[in-house]
Amino acid sequence: MISVNELALEIFDNLANYSEDFNVAYHELDNGAKIVDCGVSVPGGYAAGRAFTEICMGGLGEVNFRMGQIKHVPLPFIEVCTDYPAISCLGAQKAGWTVKVGNYFAMGSGPARALALKPKHTFEVIGYEDESDDAVIALESDHLPNGEVMDKIAKDCGIDVENLCAVVAPTASLVGSIQVCGRCVETAIYKLNELGFDTTKISAAIGSAPIPPVKADATKAMGTTNDATIYHGQINLTMKAPEIKDYLEKIPSNKSKGYGKPFYEIFKEANFDFYQIDTSLFSPAEVTINELAEGKVYHVGEVNPDVTLKSFGYI
Amino acid sequence: MISVNELALEIFDNLANYSEDFNVAYHELDNGAKIVDCGVSVPGGYAAGRAFTEICMGGLGEVNFRMGQIKHVPLPFIEVCTDYPAISCLGAQKAGWTVKVGNYFAMGSGPARALALKPKHTFEVIGYEDESDDAVIALESDHLPNGEVMDKIAKDCGIDVENLCAVVAPTASLVGSIQVCGRCVETAIYKLNELGFDTTKISAAIGSAPIPPVKADATKAMGTTNDATIYHGQINLTMKAPEIKDYLEKIPSNKSKGYGKPFYEIFKEANFDFYQIDTSLFSPAEVTINELAEGKVYHVGEVNPDVTLKSFGYI
Amino acid sequence: MISVNELALEIFDNLANYSEDFNVAYHELDNGAKIVDCGVSVPGGYAAGRAFTEICMGGLGEVNFRMGQIKHVPLPFIEVCTDYPAISCLGAQKAGWTVKVGNYFAMGSGPARALALKPKHTFEVIGYEDESDDAVIALESDHLPNGEVMDKIAKDCGIDVENLCAVVAPTASLVGSIQVCGRCVETAIYKLNELGFDTTKISAAIGSAPIPPVKADATKAMGTTNDATIYHGQINLTMKAPEIKDYLEKIPSNKSKGYGKPFYEIFKEANFDFYQIDTSLFSPAEVTINELAEGKVYHVGEVNPDVTLKSFGYI
Repeated sequence: MISVNELALEIFDNLANYSEDFNVAYHELDNGAKIVDCGVSVPGGYAAGRAFTEICMGGLGEVNFRMGQIKHVPLPFIEVCTDYPAISCLGAQKAGWTVKVGNYFAMGSGPARALALKPKHTFEVIGYEDESDDAVIALESDHLPNGEVMDKIAKDCGIDVENLCAVVAPTASLVGSIQVCGRCVETAIYKLNELGFDTTKISAAIGSAPIPPVKADATKAMGTTNDATIYHGQINLTMKAPEIKDYLEKIPSNKSKGYGKPFYEIFKEANFDFYQIDTSLFSPAEVTINELAEGKVYHVGEVNPDVTLKSFGYI
Repeated sequence: MISVNELALEIFDNLANYSEDFNVAYHELDNGAKIVDCGVSVPGGYAAGRAFTEICMGGLGEVNFRMGQIKHVPLPFIEVCTDYPAISCLGAQKAGWTVKVGNYFAMGSGPARALALKPKHTFEVIGYEDESDDAVIALESDHLPNGEVMDKIAKDCGIDVENLCAVVAPTASLVGSIQVCGRCVETAIYKLNELGFDTTKISAAIGSAPIPPVKADATKAMGTTNDATIYHGQINLTMKAPEIKDYLEKIPSNKSKGYGKPFYEIFKEANFDFYQIDTSLFSPAEVTINELAEGKVYHVGEVNPDVTLKSFGYI
Repeated sequence: MISVNELALEIFDNLANYSEDFNVAYHELDNGAKIVDCGVSVPGGYAAGRAFTEICMGGLGEVNFRMGQIKHVPLPFIEVCTDYPAISCLGAQKAGWTVKVGNYFAMGSGPARALALKPKHTFEVIGYEDESDDAVIALESDHLPNGEVMDKIAKDCGIDVENLCAVVAPTASLVGSIQVCGRCVETAIYKLNELGFDTTKISAAIGSAPIPPVKADATKAMGTTNDATIYHGQINLTMKAPEIKDYLEKIPSNKSKGYGKPFYEIFKEANFDFYQIDTSLFSPAEVTINELAEGKVYHVGEVNPDVTLKSFGYI
């Protein structure tokens, strides 16, 4: 069985060993835990953003960059591709682990979740658990974790702390921008899973989204990074599941209540109370599907260049 | 001299050794022949599609994927690039070997052809033959070959059967869709060769085509996979050959008789008799050329988004 | 500290060891100097063009190719990305070394400049010098350098000549076309440096440009290769430098005096006297900027498809 942690460990080791080339910083804590700072006290960059995103996907995704254009504005885009959508997106990349130890807070994602089973239900649904002595976790946070935090994570994973590796980047950093829009495919898989669809029937997925500009603070950055997928994520799914036709209408973001404004505005109107936001908004803008059993194709949603550029600050 | 079989063998070994990561299955037959199933009994995926296509090109091509768009429809695209167009496309990728042993039937392509010289004329024209103790063949088929089939192929290649490797994918599979539209550059080189142009004067080629959706049966899949190149293949050639100006008009697909309908419809109207179809249809939609001796550029043909989307099922 | 020469040496060794795959030729001179001819007496290709460009950037840039489109014309594009813009572009890629020994003339660029400090001022401004026993230089020339030329370069670098490596390509060759439009990002960094902006504050850069067709002679080729960036280079910069707002207006090419005609025409009107040309023309067409301190974005300039296609010869 594929081990998302073993695959991610190779990418982590590369980041750690060539940290200067990646514009990141490697730290080993007193308890032996290994950390690569990808944006807290370092600039990071595109190469680090790719490594971070591929680690999030448990080594089962491929990430590339290219220039693209939204209306008249040239912007970098991320391209994400995976042949294991359920495992890489739900079993690893999904931000399903809220790491909270003492004063430390981070959104946890990546393959370590497949050891700690965070949350357990997800792993039951996709029928996957990892077995590995090593764990790699991705932390979205403005701060690096200390030894105590790493001890707790290792304990939850059931591994020795010296075998725990973490990559860390703030939401408001270049790597943060890349790794969040790098969830464009995951957002589609996540939404289908939430709707009750069996995502293990999706055999391949590819998608792209604009890389959002880094904003000055984490809340605003949360807005633009989500908008990249909500308003301009384009995903193509390959699956053997004729029942997909019953889910089509509910997939794209434009079917949700808050749709049509930058996420930051919606969040502000909700007094920054996450629980008041219609979570169906967290969907890609546009999805095409190739269903193999019947040899059919489907196309739902549409990109929204205007809201995207407004969110990014270009109009 | 470059050995397309040795170069392809490296890609094959990678596929075989990491078969689970590629979502493919590795089999060794009793006679020692090695087979990687890329879509018969397995889902395959993008990574396998790239490896299959690069094997077809004898390791002399580079394949990448990205999201693109045809009119309002977001679709995955393949990018193909080679610095050895004649050898990689005609000496390897061209589907020039009809493998028929007992009940087994497959369209054969890939570097093994450069040992078996199938067909011999092609190799005389491009002045290339491989010398290698190993052979790699690509089989487009709904079934895996058995030992008898592999014995026959090995014999034709003049090698021991335990040194014969095969990758296999049905037309109606994701890898099938990828590897056929991955022939977009080959189609341009093939057409020029058919027209009597000396393709060894083409020093580099790059092209892209949409990856067609997988259809429910092989005949329909044959239609969409060909339409990807016929109606939306875009190729750029670099060559030193001023005489190219005499061939321009005949290169693109839109000069052929059947042009303007999805291939499946043309095929149906011909009562599914391949020999009634104007073979000049098998051309890329659009070609730009940089001729170096005179420092000129040429542009022929045009993409046909409507027929492409109709063929794919999106309109 | 990162060594651009050590990083580039790995790429050079790969080119030299697999010269046939790259369609290039490796030569070792009597004095031990190593040369890879990428277009003087060989065709070269895309793979060699990528290696050449990545060598120019001191191993700190990533280069990819894809098909794109300008108006109705499909063309290959280069994608360039770096997480060390100042070092890779100004400390290596910039064509800052005029190599003139006896009758030999070449525009020199690449990491060897960071040893010879050509020109010294540039390295003072970016605060970078390399320390390496090996040097790799990129020469834009119609001829290969002889032993005497290599001796002089080695001496200027302060290294033994047997540790000197050179890649060579004419302007009017495929590798020449690729490596010049591969300077699209460098042109933006260069321009900002010329304007007095501290480019070490730019943490990441990504850009693309069409790969210009090869012309029949060096002067015409100089025109089209420059036009690719001047009229169709699109760059995105990530930086922490609020003062960038004072430089915006002067960045794009459309603010320069000669703008609006293919470079060759401008050059001709100046009686081919380089010193009569407004050097502010050497800028990318369009730049978007993400400034991190204030979380702002900027957008200046615009592509000019008509002049680009006119320069390339398509209209």
